[in-house]
Amino acid sequence: MAEERITLAHGNGGRLMRELIEGVFARHLQHADLDVQSDAAPFELGGGTPYVSTDGFTVQPLFFPGGSIGALAVHGTVNDLAVAGATPRYLTVNAFIEEGLALADLDRLVADLAAAAREAGVAVLAGDTKVVPRGEGSGLYLATTGIGVRPAGVELGLDRVRPGDSVLISGPVGDHGTAVMLAREQFGLRGELVSDAASVQGLAEAVRTLPGLRFLRDPTRGGLATVAHEIAQARTATVRLLEAEVPVRDPVQAVCEMLGYDPYYLACEGRVVAVAAPEAAEAVLAAWRALPEGAEAAEIGRVEAGPAEVVLETELGGERVLEELEDDPLPRIC
Amino acid sequence: MAEERITLAHGNGGRLMRELIEGVFARHLQHADLDVQSDAAPFELGGGTPYVSTDGFTVQPLFFPGGSIGALAVHGTVNDLAVAGATPRYLTVNAFIEEGLALADLDRLVADLAAAAREAGVAVLAGDTKVVPRGEGSGLYLATTGIGVRPAGVELGLDRVRPGDSVLISGPVGDHGTAVMLAREQFGLRGELVSDAASVQGLAEAVRTLPGLRFLRDPTRGGLATVAHEIAQARTATVRLLEAEVPVRDPVQAVCEMLGYDPYYLACEGRVVAVAAPEAAEAVLAAWRALPEGAEAAEIGRVEAGPAEVVLETELGGERVLEELEDDPLPRIC
Repeated sequence: MAEERITLAHGNGGRLMRELIEGVFARHLQHADLDVQSDAAPFELGGGTPYVSTDGFTVQPLFFPGGSIGALAVHGTVNDLAVAGATPRYLTVNAFIEEGLALADLDRLVADLAAAAREAGVAVLAGDTKVVPRGEGSGLYLATTGIGVRPAGVELGLDRVRPGDSVLISGPVGDHGTAVMLAREQFGLRGELVSDAASVQGLAEAVRTLPGLRFLRDPTRGGLATVAHEIAQARTATVRLLEAEVPVRDPVQAVCEMLGYDPYYLACEGRVVAVAAPEAAEAVLAAWRALPEGAEAAEIGRVEAGPAEVVLETELGGERVLEELEDDPLPRIC
Repeated sequence: MAEERITLAHGNGGRLMRELIEGVFARHLQHADLDVQSDAAPFELGGGTPYVSTDGFTVQPLFFPGGSIGALAVHGTVNDLAVAGATPRYLTVNAFIEEGLALADLDRLVADLAAAAREAGVAVLAGDTKVVPRGEGSGLYLATTGIGVRPAGVELGLDRVRPGDSVLISGPVGDHGTAVMLAREQFGLRGELVSDAASVQGLAEAVRTLPGLRFLRDPTRGGLATVAHEIAQARTATVRLLEAEVPVRDPVQAVCEMLGYDPYYLACEGRVVAVAAPEAAEAVLAAWRALPEGAEAAEIGRVEAGPAEVVLETELGGERVLEELEDDPLPRIC
């Protein structure tokens, strides 16, 4: 299979497409509920409020230190459900495959997707593949939709955030953006830099029922600064971040300084930002730090009455306004 | 807006992306349940069995006689739910937008999508946009996931098909494939040829509770012949189609003869194939013919004990085996 490549005929609905679905997608994704002969699939939800989320993935390169577009397509969508307070249950997958992609690469990417889905406890219920002509699609785009259930009693939302609330993050920012950028640009200095791409379900479930928790969000495209802007704009309030408290790994800081990026705007794919009542902040930190993926969790700022802006209090005691993202610092990061 | 074009910064999570979401997607898709500030959306299902379906869309050109990729992205997914016997309720939308696409074109396409969703009675609950570099994406790819509910008492499936059953179709085959091909190739002879792209929900709901109905399927990629192959393979049976009975419009027949295509392999996007017990065939025909979109419904063949193949009985009384689709007759048709 290593030398076989995708052709346009793999997308035409006929024999080759059937073999591709059976030989690659169904083989990796097989479970009791997956029926590749059907165009629609039944599912069960049980109690709670059903939630749905959806995301597209165009990351370049397709494989990067710490992950691949296959795993990312699971994490990105599952994480949106998790930060809504829901437990992810099901996934649908759309693949736009470029003519000429090596079948062996596609196979590895679908295997990554299947492994991430198993780990997150989600079953792939339905999927579709399209093949696009060589030169379009840069290998593979994926789009996934996730369905989950939010248990009774979990109440989160931007509308619950108020001045005085604490802002927390589950780990260092900028790892994913920096790792992908270095993998792409062949700088030869990727070293210890690995994407943080992972399911945040454990982090979300550890805190979603804590009294005083207001809001969770995963800082993907646009990073921490963009989540802070969403909060500021939704509540017409000032979000103050403390530079001394926001965890940034040394190699991320070094690469950003060298190349002129701001880690606060770089995508994370395995972190959670929480807003909590001040008296609940310690409980959030404790719950996160009890998990391996939350060992570096930190309280990084607060919401204040004031104009809808994001202010960074620098380590030297000064203040800098973090503007809303304008130009693209790093396209194709997710 | 007519001269504005999509830039990579429209996909970066910052201000331009927010304005694109609010100014184009939210404007057309607005309803009480759509919250563009949230990454996951709650929904309700009520009684019955929940169903999910998903599909990707890469049709070229983006606009064609009788439709556009925007409307098609609704119909394709909604129709998969309808032929599973479910009533479509919700939709998620992923857009992969090519840098350089005119904002006015994107706006028209999203307006088409919104109109088709309203018509089908589905609410768009969640969406995501990615921008890919110029030269990739050929303007716009869409991926949609539909969620619906199958009422109690509706029982359909390939596993219910048996020898002796009747095969029926709700209208002429090949309209969509031919219309898109002519729009693309600029043959200058499109004339009265219009895609059949439409919701088949009315057709499905008219028959889904009829006693003796076994199976419904919409013949999209690979057309009628490919659906017949799915039936033949799933049941290890012969599907016999009667050339004299399969409705094909004259201009479709003429174009296919001129260009060497077989209309039985061309995609339909608004037709339904039904398999029913022989004594139920008349009831299916009557229910379909009572609808404007089913006026040309016909009984076109039967399932027979025999090898897993598809046989066409020609108008002259001969027999021809319809092979499983191999090469792609018409890429990028949906």
